[in-house]
Amino acid sequence: MQNIQSYVQEHKDRFINELIELLKIPSVSADTAYKDDVIKTAEEIRKSLVSAGCSAVEICETPGYPIVYGEKIIDKNLPTVLVYGHYDVQPADPIELWDSPPFEPIIKNTDIHPDGAIFARGACDDKGQMYMHVKALEIMTQTNQLPCNIKFMIEGEEEVGSKSLSWFVERNQEKLSNDVILISDTGMIAKDVPSITTGLRGLSYVEVEVTGPNRDLHSGLYGGAVANPINILTKMIASLHDDNNHITVPGFYDKVENLSEEERAEMAKAPFSLESYKKALDIKAVYGEEGYTTNERNSIRPTLDVNGIWGGYTGEGAKTVIASKAYAKISMRLVPNQDWVEITELFKKHFESIAPDAVTVKVTPHHGGQGYVTPIDNIGYKAASKAYQDTFGKTPIPQRSGGSIPIVSLFEKELKSKTILMGFGLDSDAIHSPNEHFGVWNYLKGIETIPLFYKYFTELNK
Amino acid sequence: MQNIQSYVQEHKDRFINELIELLKIPSVSADTAYKDDVIKTAEEIRKSLVSAGCSAVEICETPGYPIVYGEKIIDKNLPTVLVYGHYDVQPADPIELWDSPPFEPIIKNTDIHPDGAIFARGACDDKGQMYMHVKALEIMTQTNQLPCNIKFMIEGEEEVGSKSLSWFVERNQEKLSNDVILISDTGMIAKDVPSITTGLRGLSYVEVEVTGPNRDLHSGLYGGAVANPINILTKMIASLHDDNNHITVPGFYDKVENLSEEERAEMAKAPFSLESYKKALDIKAVYGEEGYTTNERNSIRPTLDVNGIWGGYTGEGAKTVIASKAYAKISMRLVPNQDWVEITELFKKHFESIAPDAVTVKVTPHHGGQGYVTPIDNIGYKAASKAYQDTFGKTPIPQRSGGSIPIVSLFEKELKSKTILMGFGLDSDAIHSPNEHFGVWNYLKGIETIPLFYKYFTELNK
Repeated sequence: MQNIQSYVQEHKDRFINELIELLKIPSVSADTAYKDDVIKTAEEIRKSLVSAGCSAVEICETPGYPIVYGEKIIDKNLPTVLVYGHYDVQPADPIELWDSPPFEPIIKNTDIHPDGAIFARGACDDKGQMYMHVKALEIMTQTNQLPCNIKFMIEGEEEVGSKSLSWFVERNQEKLSNDVILISDTGMIAKDVPSITTGLRGLSYVEVEVTGPNRDLHSGLYGGAVANPINILTKMIASLHDDNNHITVPGFYDKVENLSEEERAEMAKAPFSLESYKKALDIKAVYGEEGYTTNERNSIRPTLDVNGIWGGYTGEGAKTVIASKAYAKISMRLVPNQDWVEITELFKKHFESIAPDAVTVKVTPHHGGQGYVTPIDNIGYKAASKAYQDTFGKTPIPQRSGGSIPIVSLFEKELKSKTILMGFGLDSDAIHSPNEHFGVWNYLKGIETIPLFYKYFTELNK
Repeated sequence: MQNIQSYVQEHKDRFINELIELLKIPSVSADTAYKDDVIKTAEEIRKSLVSAGCSAVEICETPGYPIVYGEKIIDKNLPTVLVYGHYDVQPADPIELWDSPPFEPIIKNTDIHPDGAIFARGACDDKGQMYMHVKALEIMTQTNQLPCNIKFMIEGEEEVGSKSLSWFVERNQEKLSNDVILISDTGMIAKDVPSITTGLRGLSYVEVEVTGPNRDLHSGLYGGAVANPINILTKMIASLHDDNNHITVPGFYDKVENLSEEERAEMAKAPFSLESYKKALDIKAVYGEEGYTTNERNSIRPTLDVNGIWGGYTGEGAKTVIASKAYAKISMRLVPNQDWVEITELFKKHFESIAPDAVTVKVTPHHGGQGYVTPIDNIGYKAASKAYQDTFGKTPIPQRSGGSIPIVSLFEKELKSKTILMGFGLDSDAIHSPNEHFGVWNYLKGIETIPLFYKYFTELNK
């Protein structure tokens, strides 16, 4: 394809500034306080799709936040690529751990990003990676090199379970019909080690509430005689892992896909240094399920993590109280074949069953999604692989990711098409954490690589 | 003593209104945001002691909040009673569980308090019970019936460990010299079952911090491979009790006083209904150390309770994060002979020792105090018992309390005198909880009973 690199070079400052403007809007979908900002972001995405060259763009209302849909159909006989991304972001807290305000983007150089990285909530997940596709479309239309049809579907509830997206997809199968789905919401192994994510973990996210006495009690007058909901909650959560860090929920592992020794050996070839992994996290030792490597633990094995816990007096100083209630947010990462609805039920049943008589327990499912696998002989995978070869000069490594994009399996079910996950972020970009950032080099490299995917996908479909 | 009842009847409305004014000031010592209010409260106490008849009153500066001291010495050859109380209060949160604002006192009738109860933080603990003594002095001076010398020492840091009080007492032994110390900061068994607290539990209060990775992590990319500080904290806390709810900290029980079967039988005579206890707390079952009754568990046995826990995402909705840190506030109630400094050390050593390599643990001691016992053949105890007999028409029951007033053992060590605990509050008064209240009947009954203690204590000393 002609002039792509030169077009990127010529317009890169504008590409960066447009993203920075988008990052200034705190589109936190988990917190209703940001409702107006989330909706405002959708409108900005609509404008950007129009100016990038989409012929039909609309903001589609849903029971929740709107979905921005856009398309450019050049020939019904040519293949159609559906681009998915999300414009909502994770909450920014703990806000005090950010070196700069999460919604006042700044570019700083880091060891890994000597050309600079954009620091802001959503810089990588997913505003930055989603916007690469908008700019890729701009390039293809401006240079008259769009080789096939393209559709965009950008949602605003990915960080809270994509409820409205399922609702939308189920009702718009015709409108969304495509030959392949393209998403950049994952990472690559390293700047010089391009990779394509072929597997994703599923997710079950629940909230638990343990209630003891009907009011907070004086720990002196009642301590020792009444069940303390916090002590009980810690006992119940602790019991969810055995001494080998296997999860103890009955039936939890029944459908877990067990990789062959060959597959595990193949995985083990990915470059990995346990020392630098520990150094990067500043930990003395890793920790996880007996019998598996770090890379296996965070990709092909299911997990159970407490994402938040609270109860009693958490302010300054001391309060000698026995709380009436204690809470925790718990998420389980699932692997292909584990059904999140079934796992959620198993968890609920088990967690309620281990509660002592002295307390009552409530388990509230939040959301979830299935795991997913893309075969590497898929045409879309091959097209992506060739695109990376052109821009990175090497063949990307197929990689299982520990993360979850629940809607990928929804797409397969509803739209009958496979998803190609071309991620340009790095693990060190601190997505979901304070000081999230996205390398300028990665951003531009993505914009440069994506058009080549369209070229090869169209050719391979001939 | 003449006219006490009539004096109380005549002035009760003023007595109640004066207390209500005092309760309006949010003197929360645990939260520096209330610093000015705590200091303002000390000034109000000073004024009240002057108008009650103290001849010398001063606000004594300390490294922390001031101590209000007042005295009326009528004859050096007569015995001296030192009254102790505190003007600081517990934090009011969880504020949303209060039916009326914690610092806007109102009087409401309840089943237990048909004559009305004053609802406000500190109503019972300890502003209300402390102020009974101020009004008792007013009565004795106004009716010329003060039979002995009296000293007041009212502090502002009881709810946060009385650090400055220790500092003050150690430096003012002469000024504080007395024959007995009188405190109303405990409860009675029931309105028709007066009791005198003869034993108190000690306390060790610590805060623990568990640190895993150096930043919050995405639970998908790292989940399963990195120690989750919250999961680890729950495991560590859960391990502090065995299956019989014995505390597992090595050496914890070494010095625990074991009561004889006779003593336990004596204790068991106190009226108690497990059914109404459970009903009052709305719990299906009690919970505690194997082999002990509810009344033993919360009085003669030591405990370990989590008073607060927090970590990760605790806001609205869901966040798939692995927190960098998790925290808990933990307090241990101790029984006579357990040394709180030693127990704190044992806990710190044990808790640090059970942490896996994958995390680092910090244990920060907050404060603590020793347990205490008053023999019932003590003259002060006898005087109090006779006072109750006059006003309640029955002999009070000696009672071990599960609560802690660490300074009582400090007084014995520094001032060489015993403390008499005349409590007029009820367990149902919800001290340290939302909707704390103090019965008007109890308040006035206390004001009526206290002067009789002075009468009998002086007579028994002749």
